[in-house]
Amino acid sequence: MLYSHYNIRDWIEGGDEMKKLKRSYRLVDMTQFLLASPHTLIPLTTFSERYQSAKSSISEDLAIIKEVLSMEGLGDLQTLAGATGGVIYIPQRSKQESKVIVDEICLELSQPERILPGGYLYMSDILGNPHVLRELGKTFATAFSHLSNIDYILTVETKGIPLAYATSSYLNVPVIVARRDHNVTEGSAVSINYVAGSSKRIQTMSLARRALQEQSKVIIIDDFMKAGGTVRGMIDLMNEFKAQVVGVGVFVEAREEDGKYPLVEEYTSLARLVEVNTQERRVKVYSGNYFEEGEE
Amino acid sequence: MLYSHYNIRDWIEGGDEMKKLKRSYRLVDMTQFLLASPHTLIPLTTFSERYQSAKSSISEDLAIIKEVLSMEGLGDLQTLAGATGGVIYIPQRSKQESKVIVDEICLELSQPERILPGGYLYMSDILGNPHVLRELGKTFATAFSHLSNIDYILTVETKGIPLAYATSSYLNVPVIVARRDHNVTEGSAVSINYVAGSSKRIQTMSLARRALQEQSKVIIIDDFMKAGGTVRGMIDLMNEFKAQVVGVGVFVEAREEDGKYPLVEEYTSLARLVEVNTQERRVKVYSGNYFEEGEE
Repeated sequence: MLYSHYNIRDWIEGGDEMKKLKRSYRLVDMTQFLLASPHTLIPLTTFSERYQSAKSSISEDLAIIKEVLSMEGLGDLQTLAGATGGVIYIPQRSKQESKVIVDEICLELSQPERILPGGYLYMSDILGNPHVLRELGKTFATAFSHLSNIDYILTVETKGIPLAYATSSYLNVPVIVARRDHNVTEGSAVSINYVAGSSKRIQTMSLARRALQEQSKVIIIDDFMKAGGTVRGMIDLMNEFKAQVVGVGVFVEAREEDGKYPLVEEYTSLARLVEVNTQERRVKVYSGNYFEEGEE
Repeated sequence: MLYSHYNIRDWIEGGDEMKKLKRSYRLVDMTQFLLASPHTLIPLTTFSERYQSAKSSISEDLAIIKEVLSMEGLGDLQTLAGATGGVIYIPQRSKQESKVIVDEICLELSQPERILPGGYLYMSDILGNPHVLRELGKTFATAFSHLSNIDYILTVETKGIPLAYATSSYLNVPVIVARRDHNVTEGSAVSINYVAGSSKRIQTMSLARRALQEQSKVIIIDDFMKAGGTVRGMIDLMNEFKAQVVGVGVFVEAREEDGKYPLVEEYTSLARLVEVNTQERRVKVYSGNYFEEGEE
C-alpha cells in the first residue's frame, strides 16, 4: 500500500461527494489524480465507480484530458483495452521544450563566477531549485520512458540525489543511494573500490545488502561525469548485486571534444562542460548528447 | 526565469490552440498548471489572455477547481483581489489524512527486521519511495504553510535530502545541503563543529559561503533526531550566516518518553521511535508531535 499513489479502494469509496457530479468537477478531479499517479495502470472502473458514471462518459473525459496533456507537451495518456485495461499517464517533455530549459541552464552555468578551484563549477543552487529539478527529472524520465520494468534508480551521494528523486517521481520507481562513507549504519553492505578519475585516488562506495534484489533493472543518475570513474563504480556495484544497468543519465558531462569515456559505454547527458579556463575566467557549457541529432 | 514554474509569458502566448476552447479543456489545463505552480501568485489575466475568455468565466472555473481541491483535501486556492490580485495554490494535506499514511509507515517501521546495530532502524527503502516522499513532503509543507517568506530549506547530507526536496517542491523554495565532508569543492565555506549525540564524537558540517544570503529565513528538515546535536549544529551554522531558523521538521524523533531535547527547543516530528529492543527484537514507532492535540 505504501507503494501506490493512492489507496485506490479508499479513493473510490471516499468519492461520495463526487457522485453524480457535473463533468467539469469530474475533469478537475481526474486530472489531479492522473498527474499524481504516473506510470500506474488505472482501471476505468476506478473512475466509473467513484463518480457513478457510465464508462462511456469516463472515456470521453479521458479523451479530453489526453488531448490537453498532449497539446501542453506534458505527456501521454495511454489506453489499454481488455479485461486488465485502463489508462496509464506517461509524463513526457518534448526534446524541444527540454532544450529551451537546458539552454537557459547552460547559460547560467557559463557565468565565470561559478568557477571553483580544480576546474569544477558551482551548481548547488541550480540543483537546489525545485522548478529546475522538476524539469530535469521530467527530461530524464522521458529519455528513459522507452525502458520497461525499471526497478530502481541508483545514485551515489551527494549531489546526484535530488536529480535521482526528481526522476523517480515521474517514473514512479524507488531510489537507492550508494554511500561513500564506511561508518554507515545500514547493516551488512556490499562495498567496491573505484578510481575517481578527477582525483586519481581510490575511493569506496557501498550499498546495504538489502537495498535491492538480484536481477533488478537499474537506471543510474548522477550530476556530473568527468572521467566516468564514479559511474563505472556504480555499474561495478550493480554487478555485485547481479543487477542490470539499463541506462545511465548524467546532468553535466565534462568529456573532451571528440573524446570518449573509456569506462562508460552508453549514457545520456543533458549538458556538456566544454571548457573551464580558470586563468581567463571563461566557461563554456553546451547542451548534451540527449539533444544531438539521431542520438535517440 | 529559472525560478518560475513556467515562463508565464510563453505560456500565455503558446496557448494558441487553447483559445476559445470549451470549458472542459480549459479546466484540465488550468488544473495541471496550478498544481505545477504551488505558492505562486498567478494573475487572472494570465488565464483570460491565454484562453481569450472573460474574467468572469475564469473566476467560475477557478471556483470549480477550488471546490474539488478542497473536497479532495489537496489544498486551498486562495484568491487575492485588487490590481496585484490573482490566485495562489497552497498545497495542503489534512492532519487526519497525513496520519493515515504516517500510521502505515510507523507500522512498517516497527518490523523487527529493520533493527540495525546501535539501535538504529533501516529506513532507506521508505525514504526512497516516491509516493511516501510526496506524502511526507506535503505534510511538512502543510505544517509550515503558516510561515511566510521562507527563503530556503536546509538539510545535512545524506538521508534528509530527499525529504527536504519533497517538501521544497510543495513550498516552492530552494534547498541547501550542508556537507559533512571537508574535501568538498564548493569554494569558500563556513564550517562548524558539533557533537552528534548518538556517537558523542565531534563532527564538522560546512556550507558554501555563497549558498545563502544573510538575513534569510530557513526551515530545517532532517530524517532522524536522536539527541538533537545535528539539528543544533544546523541552527548554529545558520547563526554564522546571520540567518533565522523559523521551523524544524524531523521525520522520526527518538526522544525518551517524557524526555526533552536540551539542544532543540521547538520542532515538528511526524513519527517517534519509542523503543528499539535489540535483544528481544522489538520496535515501537508511534506518530509524532505533529499529530498531538493542541500542538499546533
